Amino acid sequence: MTKLKFLPLCFILIALISFKTSQAQQSSIPEVGMFKVTILYPNGDDKTFDMDYYEKTHMPMVAGFLGKNLKFYEIDKGIAGRTSNDKAPFVAIGYFYITDVAEYNKAIAQNRDVILNDIKNYTNIQPTIQISEIKKLGYNNIK
Amino acid sequence: MTKLKFLPLCFILIALISFKTSQAQQSSIPEVGMFKVTILYPNGDDKTFDMDYYEKTHMPMVAGFLGKNLKFYEIDKGIAGRTSNDKAPFVAIGYFYITDVAEYNKAIAQNRDVILNDIKNYTNIQPTIQISEIKKLGYNNIK
Repeated sequence: MTKLKFLPLCFILIALISFKTSQAQQSSIPEVGMFKVTILYPNGDDKTFDMDYYEKTHMPMVAGFLGKNLKFYEIDKGIAGRTSNDKAPFVAIGYFYITDVAEYNKAIAQNRDVILNDIKNYTNIQPTIQISEIKKLGYNNIK
Repeated sequence: MTKLKFLPLCFILIALISFKTSQAQQSSIPEVGMFKVTILYPNGDDKTFDMDYYEKTHMPMVAGFLGKNLKFYEIDKGIAGRTSNDKAPFVAIGYFYITDVAEYNKAIAQNRDVILNDIKNYTNIQPTIQISEIKKLGYNNIK
């Protein structure tokens, strides 16, 4: 009976740890073969960009249009260029990590007007858009 | 005694699962607050880019210079622009996910000549370099 009483506790612990692991796996892990939509906002004189609106309103809205095709999205804020003294070439860069490019194009086409009309709410920059395939993920040998 | 015999098995299982989790955390997971060096290779007429060399030789070499400061690196291959009919604005984009910008600049400065001399081995493109801070990672609410 002691054994049987102990068994459920052990399973609960394992279940909790596994749940944490599987949550991590469903989250922000880029993988080779995934596709990535990169939206770049080039820097320049008289350029404005409301990062707060982009983070809290625009990107979550577009993410919602993408459904399960979206693995995760990421927002980068430009802080420097080649050296710390150089201006960042891009004020901000947004990324959508997706699995299906055709489905992405369809979702964007269906919501095109809403997306385009929202851009003026956070920036006067015309973004550059690129679709890429993740070719490689790597590490150095030190770890 | 039955309890005590059962306990080690339970701990071993938990340790194995935790080990798997912590391995995942050490790999390619971007995090808010990390810094990212983005190296963009603009597309254009007469531009050449040897992705194989970049993947197998150049990026692993630079990664090695960065030591423990490098969390992971990523290579994107441009496949399209805003629509599938548009040319990708960038042939390739490389990323170094790091924790310390000053340390990165120091490591690059120390190996500057080797890095610059290697670029001609895979491309005739002058890369654009940006240092960014990861501001946000997000998901949609469907999962």
